[in-house]
Amino acid sequence: MSVTQQVESICRAAHDAQYALAGASAEDKNKMLRAIAKAISGASGQLLEINKKDVEEAKASGMSFAMVDRLTLTPERISVMAEGVAQVADLPDPVGEVTEEWTVPSGLHIKKVRVPLGVIGVIYESRPNVTADVAALCLKSGNCVVLRGGKDAINSNRAIYNIIVKAVKESGFNPACVGFIDDTSREGSTALLKQGGYVDVVIPRGGDGLKRFVLENAVMPVIASAGGVCHLFVEKSANPDKCIPVIENAKMQRPSTCNALEQLLVQRDIAEKFLPAAIKNLTDKGCRITACKESKTILDGAGVPCIAATEEDFKKEHGDYELTVRVVKDTDEAIAIINANNTAHSDGILSEDKKEIAKFVKGVDAACVYVNASTRFTDGFQFGFGAEIGISTQKLHARGPLGLKQLTSEKYIADGDYLSRK
Amino acid sequence: MSVTQQVESICRAAHDAQYALAGASAEDKNKMLRAIAKAISGASGQLLEINKKDVEEAKASGMSFAMVDRLTLTPERISVMAEGVAQVADLPDPVGEVTEEWTVPSGLHIKKVRVPLGVIGVIYESRPNVTADVAALCLKSGNCVVLRGGKDAINSNRAIYNIIVKAVKESGFNPACVGFIDDTSREGSTALLKQGGYVDVVIPRGGDGLKRFVLENAVMPVIASAGGVCHLFVEKSANPDKCIPVIENAKMQRPSTCNALEQLLVQRDIAEKFLPAAIKNLTDKGCRITACKESKTILDGAGVPCIAATEEDFKKEHGDYELTVRVVKDTDEAIAIINANNTAHSDGILSEDKKEIAKFVKGVDAACVYVNASTRFTDGFQFGFGAEIGISTQKLHARGPLGLKQLTSEKYIADGDYLSRK
Repeated sequence: MSVTQQVESICRAAHDAQYALAGASAEDKNKMLRAIAKAISGASGQLLEINKKDVEEAKASGMSFAMVDRLTLTPERISVMAEGVAQVADLPDPVGEVTEEWTVPSGLHIKKVRVPLGVIGVIYESRPNVTADVAALCLKSGNCVVLRGGKDAINSNRAIYNIIVKAVKESGFNPACVGFIDDTSREGSTALLKQGGYVDVVIPRGGDGLKRFVLENAVMPVIASAGGVCHLFVEKSANPDKCIPVIENAKMQRPSTCNALEQLLVQRDIAEKFLPAAIKNLTDKGCRITACKESKTILDGAGVPCIAATEEDFKKEHGDYELTVRVVKDTDEAIAIINANNTAHSDGILSEDKKEIAKFVKGVDAACVYVNASTRFTDGFQFGFGAEIGISTQKLHARGPLGLKQLTSEKYIADGDYLSRK
Repeated sequence: MSVTQQVESICRAAHDAQYALAGASAEDKNKMLRAIAKAISGASGQLLEINKKDVEEAKASGMSFAMVDRLTLTPERISVMAEGVAQVADLPDPVGEVTEEWTVPSGLHIKKVRVPLGVIGVIYESRPNVTADVAALCLKSGNCVVLRGGKDAINSNRAIYNIIVKAVKESGFNPACVGFIDDTSREGSTALLKQGGYVDVVIPRGGDGLKRFVLENAVMPVIASAGGVCHLFVEKSANPDKCIPVIENAKMQRPSTCNALEQLLVQRDIAEKFLPAAIKNLTDKGCRITACKESKTILDGAGVPCIAATEEDFKKEHGDYELTVRVVKDTDEAIAIINANNTAHSDGILSEDKKEIAKFVKGVDAACVYVNASTRFTDGFQFGFGAEIGISTQKLHARGPLGLKQLTSEKYIADGDYLSRK
């Protein structure tokens, strides 16, 4: 069988398994998830052994320390992975939830009920724990899932998948509920993206290149994020002392994440006073600053190191200890700049002025708009969703952190009494 | 300027106009809609004159009576069109609605708020009233719209657009909020489908060919329906006398609509008794019947006219006074047949047995699942949405009738008190 035929056969089997899984009780799904968690814990030694192979190959290929680290399993990480699956079992089941209910004048009683999406394809990159995280979220929300992980972690991913599928089967579910594409060539992912008859939606988890590849090639709907070019705007009424730690948190806590700060806008009225202290706090901690002409003059005058920003810097996701600073006239200009340059992920205002805040939250087009808070909060756990499969920056279906609810669709169930339309 | 450049310029202007419209008050938007309604009413004579040209050309080209009828404006139809726009003004504004609100342990207060989608492209076929209907729904929900109507109605569509855009301008809104592609070649629609940078979502309104063309060519998300292959399943406990008028309503009231019945499934236990009376009621009224082998034997025996169904008939959208009849073993078989052959639009069960009903509504994968009611109820007005822009048969974003709410997205607005992530 060719790779394409194998992928088709995996997806068809998942498609055929979907209705039984969609009808399963929360109790049975939770038992299955706890069995998966237990099996992962129990296989810790075996997983560590297999993971070594991926890590050695990665090191031999000259992979960076950071990337090797993402790939590496430790006893603690395996235990966190197993706990994560067990925690998904503890979350409420979204399937069957009645989200609206009403009776229309004709007498028809209409309920809107959450149902699974069906079959979800997930294409992801290096971290092996994603295999377990994604499978748990999809199964809990009643969806079959077809996994296609990255080349670097193939041995670890396969081992985790084998543990999962065994537990799925032993819990009385169809093992085809979880499919695994054991081919890391482009052919494998392309074949998955063509299974529109069997796969309802595809979620890419990874860098911008992967997302673009998926958007261009998928024949089914995609839930994608497009990276996070996140802004904070310091409006003139903001409490400067309180702003400084928020900006530091947004930029420095974990700069590689999509919710980290990339662009700082400061209102002209306070720039001269605010910028030197706020930016020195970052440069002292190792942050590189690219500045607009006006902010560069101010920072140069105050002896705070920075370099001139290029046009590209103003819309760049640095993903590192690097920040672009820009002076703006007012809230209106801040909104216009943000809407022109953001990726509609997370942007915020720091301000004490209710009118300016109201204008900002209404005007900024983003999944998450913050008032006096760090952009780092855009996260399924922080939002209280219990877990997340990613952060959506698209407008259709779901925006922001994708929890269990966002992995469902809805259907209308309408009750009549042998009712005809007039 | 080439067609492509013209389309790009219309879409860019709509994109630039979107934030002002998104921030407009319900009051101002309603004033604008009432001005549009009044302008349409006032231009009735002029519209009738212009419409004559489209109608004459259509007749000269040998268009069918039904198609010419769809194209034709009458004083009454113009008044219904104007009233429709005024009615949209009376509907509640979905924009700004807080759909969820909670505080997380970190102290962040999160609100989920309805916002417009941005710019909506709509590609539609012959009926000129769609120009006004679609513009009204998009404007009310705070969305800019780019309209691309069919060739047959181009003169009428252009005239209606000119009336709308004048009223938009006179109401103090940017006229670019409503764009009109005055080119009915394939180049015009293809160019629209490539404006992913300016147009957030495209909605095709028309036949299956149009939908497929849009799905294949659009670079932005699409909200599409895929026709309605609707089923009713008569379970053995159903009250036969009460079923007959429901089946008649579903099939005969308006067979060209997507919510009309195409496939009737009858449980074997009652087929012998139920089918002759139920089907004779339809054939007497001019319905053609294609029957499975078993139902054909029964109908032949009872002297009710029918012909043998082909494989194709079992998944066909007849769109006419034609019905396919099939005998099935039980609810499980009915569910399996429906899920294999429906277009996930509208399917129903006729039954008195709560257990079988529960199994059916859970098992059938469709936007709308009916219990003892005609499939004809799948409609924005019948559902109480006040109006609809179409019926979605996809699982992402919105399923079933698309009202004003379904033309919105949501954003999270999160309030902290200079809060950092721990």
